[in-house]
Amino acid sequence: MPDRYALVLAGGRGERFWPWSRPERPKQLLPLARGGRSLLSATLERIRSLIAPDHCLVLTAHDLVSAVARECPAGTHVMGEPVSRNTAPAIGAAAHWFAAQSRDASFVVLPSDHAIDDGAAFAADLERAFAAAESGNTLVTFGVRPTGPETVFGYIRRGERVGDRLFRVAAFTEKPDRATAEGFLQSGDYAWNAGIFVWRASVFLDALQKNRPELAKTLQPLGTAGARFEDTFREVLPGCESISVDYAVLERSREVMMVEPTFDWDDLGSWSAWARRQERDARGNVCYGDAVVVDCDGCVVVGESGRAAALGLRDMVVVHAQGGTLSCPLDRVEEVRRVVEAIRAREAGR
Amino acid sequence: MPDRYALVLAGGRGERFWPWSRPERPKQLLPLARGGRSLLSATLERIRSLIAPDHCLVLTAHDLVSAVARECPAGTHVMGEPVSRNTAPAIGAAAHWFAAQSRDASFVVLPSDHAIDDGAAFAADLERAFAAAESGNTLVTFGVRPTGPETVFGYIRRGERVGDRLFRVAAFTEKPDRATAEGFLQSGDYAWNAGIFVWRASVFLDALQKNRPELAKTLQPLGTAGARFEDTFREVLPGCESISVDYAVLERSREVMMVEPTFDWDDLGSWSAWARRQERDARGNVCYGDAVVVDCDGCVVVGESGRAAALGLRDMVVVHAQGGTLSCPLDRVEEVRRVVEAIRAREAGR
Repeated sequence: MPDRYALVLAGGRGERFWPWSRPERPKQLLPLARGGRSLLSATLERIRSLIAPDHCLVLTAHDLVSAVARECPAGTHVMGEPVSRNTAPAIGAAAHWFAAQSRDASFVVLPSDHAIDDGAAFAADLERAFAAAESGNTLVTFGVRPTGPETVFGYIRRGERVGDRLFRVAAFTEKPDRATAEGFLQSGDYAWNAGIFVWRASVFLDALQKNRPELAKTLQPLGTAGARFEDTFREVLPGCESISVDYAVLERSREVMMVEPTFDWDDLGSWSAWARRQERDARGNVCYGDAVVVDCDGCVVVGESGRAAALGLRDMVVVHAQGGTLSCPLDRVEEVRRVVEAIRAREAGR
Repeated sequence: MPDRYALVLAGGRGERFWPWSRPERPKQLLPLARGGRSLLSATLERIRSLIAPDHCLVLTAHDLVSAVARECPAGTHVMGEPVSRNTAPAIGAAAHWFAAQSRDASFVVLPSDHAIDDGAAFAADLERAFAAAESGNTLVTFGVRPTGPETVFGYIRRGERVGDRLFRVAAFTEKPDRATAEGFLQSGDYAWNAGIFVWRASVFLDALQKNRPELAKTLQPLGTAGARFEDTFREVLPGCESISVDYAVLERSREVMMVEPTFDWDDLGSWSAWARRQERDARGNVCYGDAVVVDCDGCVVVGESGRAAALGLRDMVVVHAQGGTLSCPLDRVEEVRRVVEAIRAREAGR
């Protein structure tokens, strides 16, 4: 049986949870998982019984290495990216790292900022994905059954069923508009691309070579770097193109399969997504930390770094975190980036 | 001509500006006046050219004496109340203080947390009020011409006109309900009771003796306290009933006149009252301090102790001040006390 590894991608900056999330404390480090732990910590805990910490590689931004390492079990490898180059270069580099440890290495790629609560289901689904990936030259992705016409995810069109909740992938699609997403939902043939992948290291490197030879060539020195791997990684990454693994490899490969997971999944892409998983009071309010709610309905009130009070509101978010305050309607939380952009523009203009 | 004095009442706790106002930094100490100065400082500045600082007495809560004194011109007398007993005992005590300085003392009573911008008009109106008070045994109050059917003020019904913008007072009324206030507004015979009074010290003490003999008796030791005035004040105040000067004296006196001021006046009773006097952006938003406003209309956004961001809001208040946050609709700012009460109840329950 091949050696199994895990790559956890923890480099995101997650501006959608501003003011709680900040560049120096992004979403994956916030206590958004059940029990008040960070999403990163929950991700690592979820795979701990399946893959030993010393078989786990966590990639993050160079300035987040210390904060990320504090969330990791002893023995976990944490490596800092000097620049951000999206997922394809990071996964390619990790494939070299794992291949250097074992010629038969296979690995799972896990985002660090999603919520999955059912650990047993996750373990079973992951086992099926590894089995599928190890049985041939297949790239395996996870396709979550849609619960609504979301426009913030890429979609996967299912092809032929080849096993228990295992399908060939017919096509990947970009984030759809609302009408297209409605059609996807009704057809029953589409799944959300959850950004969780399993494959053999060698199979991935071959696919990268075939579909993105320039990128594969830039990463090639990592294959023979040995003890200088980390230094070499810092040297080659800036020269890589910034491109997602979906676009660089998956969409161009014929041999891709999709596992339909049995576990719950949420990308926690916004305050409203997070709130859906929290307990509510009798009037549907979610209160976190030092929250004071008077005559409100369906609100999310977070007092993380001070007291947050809401009076007479309906379906609003009021957040006091990291010394800043945000107030907006719940149906506009997808636009929180606009606040971050306004702040950035103002600071640039100073 | 009698000696003229001023009593500034600076003991309020002003919870309507929570979270900006706190017990240790109440409304009169907030920079709500034009030019970013405190309301108390603006009040003292307004009378500075009319009455010398050493003829000014500022009464406040004992724990606010230092903070209040920092806002006062050198020479101003600041005295702390060991307990709060509303306006009648405070004004009665001050009348003794002024009477001890001069047998012919007259004084103006000024709230410290109202906004008046036209200093020249204020000086002229005050002169007329002093002249009326000094010409006889009259208690003089200021009655502001209503600009709307406000229900948060007491009203004064005007009687016979006896001079330039000077009227006898026919009656005082409690805070009316909305329909009554509409009627008051239409009749044209009613004015808002602004809580600004002028009278001779001796006339006030006589009126207090006549209408509230028990209270007058409790305050009597102040009349002979001499150098021990402040100690005596602290001794007698706790034994006084807590009662407003309106109820204790004005409503029961026959000899009351009303000056209709030519100055602008606002009691700044809420966030919306304050916002009415601020500059607005093209979409009607008032931004103060570190405020970030994205796609909002008619909002008040205050970032005093940190950044306050509002996204997609209409006619809302978002305040980040003194380490706390408040978000509520502008038409419900009169209910901010409910938040303060909820906090108090929670803290009492701990």
